[in-house]
Amino acid sequence: MTLNLANNMQSAVEKELQSQIGRLNEPNTNEFYEMMTYHMGWSGEGLGENTSGKRIRPLLLLLCSASGNPDYAWQNALPGAAAIELVHNFSLIHDDIQDHSDKRRNRPTVWRKWGVPQAINAGDGLYALSNLVLLDLLRNNQAEIVMRAALIFHNTCLNLTRGQYMDMSYESRTNLALKEYWPMIANKTAALISASTEIGAILTGLNKQSSEVYRQFGHYLGLAYQIKDDILGIWGNEIQTGKSVISDLITGKKTLPVLYGIHKKGIFSRRWYEGNIMVDEAPEIADQLAKEGARLYAEETTDQMVEMALKFLNIMAPQGSAGEILFDLTFQLLKRDA
Amino acid sequence: MTLNLANNMQSAVEKELQSQIGRLNEPNTNEFYEMMTYHMGWSGEGLGENTSGKRIRPLLLLLCSASGNPDYAWQNALPGAAAIELVHNFSLIHDDIQDHSDKRRNRPTVWRKWGVPQAINAGDGLYALSNLVLLDLLRNNQAEIVMRAALIFHNTCLNLTRGQYMDMSYESRTNLALKEYWPMIANKTAALISASTEIGAILTGLNKQSSEVYRQFGHYLGLAYQIKDDILGIWGNEIQTGKSVISDLITGKKTLPVLYGIHKKGIFSRRWYEGNIMVDEAPEIADQLAKEGARLYAEETTDQMVEMALKFLNIMAPQGSAGEILFDLTFQLLKRDA
Repeated sequence: MTLNLANNMQSAVEKELQSQIGRLNEPNTNEFYEMMTYHMGWSGEGLGENTSGKRIRPLLLLLCSASGNPDYAWQNALPGAAAIELVHNFSLIHDDIQDHSDKRRNRPTVWRKWGVPQAINAGDGLYALSNLVLLDLLRNNQAEIVMRAALIFHNTCLNLTRGQYMDMSYESRTNLALKEYWPMIANKTAALISASTEIGAILTGLNKQSSEVYRQFGHYLGLAYQIKDDILGIWGNEIQTGKSVISDLITGKKTLPVLYGIHKKGIFSRRWYEGNIMVDEAPEIADQLAKEGARLYAEETTDQMVEMALKFLNIMAPQGSAGEILFDLTFQLLKRDA
Repeated sequence: MTLNLANNMQSAVEKELQSQIGRLNEPNTNEFYEMMTYHMGWSGEGLGENTSGKRIRPLLLLLCSASGNPDYAWQNALPGAAAIELVHNFSLIHDDIQDHSDKRRNRPTVWRKWGVPQAINAGDGLYALSNLVLLDLLRNNQAEIVMRAALIFHNTCLNLTRGQYMDMSYESRTNLALKEYWPMIANKTAALISASTEIGAILTGLNKQSSEVYRQFGHYLGLAYQIKDDILGIWGNEIQTGKSVISDLITGKKTLPVLYGIHKKGIFSRRWYEGNIMVDEAPEIADQLAKEGARLYAEETTDQMVEMALKFLNIMAPQGSAGEILFDLTFQLLKRDA
């Protein structure tokens, strides 16, 4: 029953996404459409189970809409769920260019296949589409409520670019305090996840005070999610993550474990300041970083964020199958190794 | 009186833009904010009269709102005008990366100063901001009308990416028909100009039938504008255009004069198919293209588009100073050499 609901939601999201992206399936823009269906994991070489992404954000939005008000049909929230997933994928396409990443979900990235100029435009196209899709909420939701959702949605997108700016600018900064990590990931990662949970709540008609609890739940869930991602980016497994192994050490990303290591001023920190880490030395440096306590620190911080998320989830007291899945997801997401 | 109105509108637009972009003037995102104010022509090296762009689109939107309904205060349309100008500037920042352009308005482009990754994000930021700014129309306009405007706005942005896709894909195509030029520039250029005139009309409360006439006016104005730009891109003057001279021949852009020359199958066409045109031979090839009639053809086509624009402008029968300026602009814009 519970699994059924999640499956129903996931396949409804996929159908909505396919129908919306189908707007570009026209004679003049066939290849443009192909870039998008490739990135979404529906077409092209190397298709497989893990090429589509997990669609966590739209699922969270629908679950929050299903559990917030038993009288609200979650199907009415589908355009909102699809819009959030489209924004997420727009940001991934641009991220991969910015990080010079060759692989995403075990396949060549869009810029690797079609070049940087077309990949920039494919990202822009998904973003433009997401804004249009959001307005489809007007079909089954009151205009006033859709306006509230749109305000959060567009604010969140602006925050995404703030976070992305910070992330990139941190790469060249040598005097970064550990606390500067938080505004960066709050904008870069947690913002879109908290927008998912908050918009889900708003669509069901919840007032500002109640929807704020949903936002906080998503915020802490997002922070935990990002720190977990930081851990996987250093100690993860290439096949599990679909990205290049230990790429975060090689690209010099200032993730939480790295910032912790830098501030420890030990062997890792000295090596870090000597310059770029090469592929063949990365496993040893990852071990050293773990020895200095960075992995444990990051894992404990993840747990703290999960506890905060659970605190707000308990206040939400989500009902029915959707509620069960939200609790499951909160734990399960954080045990993930991919 | 007439000039006063245009000046008042232009300075109100600039003030609105500065206040909106000011949202990013925060300790964490100072440099991000600086990228935007630099691109908008308000800060940084090489400041001058022509560093800000002409703000044609917001002016058109305000003029259409002022002339469409004498009871509507154009000041209420300012967030719409600013949103359109922000989208335009987002697309310019990404365009310059995609075209590998070094200069914009006589200054180094954003990617030249801050690198491609940050420039992609600065464009994304302006776009996200534009979506948020559009919602500020809710302050002084009915929600239902703002929704109509938003639908046009977001559809237009999606069309921009369609046009940009076509423009880039045409570069590598050797079998391009002359008629394929039109859907490309309709999306890439005319869409945002027709959105400006149509949204201006909609905000004043005009119905679908009347606002459609405004859309058509903007559509033909936009087509004329782009063909004029194509002419300047080959036979223009670097100081006037603020871009590199004859850059369109060197980059291989399939503009209207070039497509005309290719289909003439003369000396120009043979040289075109032999491969990249170099800087030192470009003036001679530009002369040859003019000799084969491409410049005259493009100029005559511009005139036809202006005539169509005037036809719809006459149906609109815009009133007062705003009306006078719209007629002036339609002619003046097309005599521009910059």
